[in-house]
Amino acid sequence: MAEDVGILVLGHGSSKPYNKEMVEKCAQLIAKTHDGPVRIAFLNMDEPNIAAGLNSFAGTGINRIVALPIFLAHGVHTLEDIPQELSVDPTLRRGSCKLNGTEVEIRCAEPLGVDESIAALAYRRATEALE
Amino acid sequence: MAEDVGILVLGHGSSKPYNKEMVEKCAQLIAKTHDGPVRIAFLNMDEPNIAAGLNSFAGTGINRIVALPIFLAHGVHTLEDIPQELSVDPTLRRGSCKLNGTEVEIRCAEPLGVDESIAALAYRRATEALE
Repeated sequence: MAEDVGILVLGHGSSKPYNKEMVEKCAQLIAKTHDGPVRIAFLNMDEPNIAAGLNSFAGTGINRIVALPIFLAHGVHTLEDIPQELSVDPTLRRGSCKLNGTEVEIRCAEPLGVDESIAALAYRRATEALE
Repeated sequence: MAEDVGILVLGHGSSKPYNKEMVEKCAQLIAKTHDGPVRIAFLNMDEPNIAAGLNSFAGTGINRIVALPIFLAHGVHTLEDIPQELSVDPTLRRGSCKLNGTEVEIRCAEPLGVDESIAALAYRRATEALE
């Protein structure tokens, strides 16, 4: 994707460190592929929160942000809480924010969802549990 | 894996239908690969619950159950709630239950965790959001 697109990788957050670690490492892997800036933010408990995550793109020169939930499936968090935190229309799943006085488009990506790669990874975890 | 191993695919559960749909489809994909029985259960809100999920292996002739959490990372659910519901030692992450009067071993698999396949799928979702 173009370098004027920022990706805001969104995690659920947790009282334990593992969700944040997972989201951070996932963002690092995405940053290897993506030409634009990649940032992280969390809905609950971990920092930065979503407002701080949006602000962390200030000065990067991006024109668009994709809010990318690292969630397995849609639910209250992806359909209601994240659009609300981003001040994005929950039906259109797009909106905008101001960064350094410039209007920046925001689009909400879908959660991971069903995919053969998830099933294959899960089956690998099942196999490892018997080793 | 051997056909005497049952896989109990575990979801978080949700007030909306999407987590259950995701877990069901994931279990269907796993069942295409696995020679033994595959069942589902949910920690919260959706049915069957974990006790009912364990009982659903009755009559299948399995000797072992892998409890496979379809969760992205460890947290309170995978480290505390699921072992408690399975009556499994939370440190050893293994234990047993009785099915039709026969002792059956239970092992808890790790959550999905960080993997290049998750990052690649997430990046695909980000790309789709700009289409």
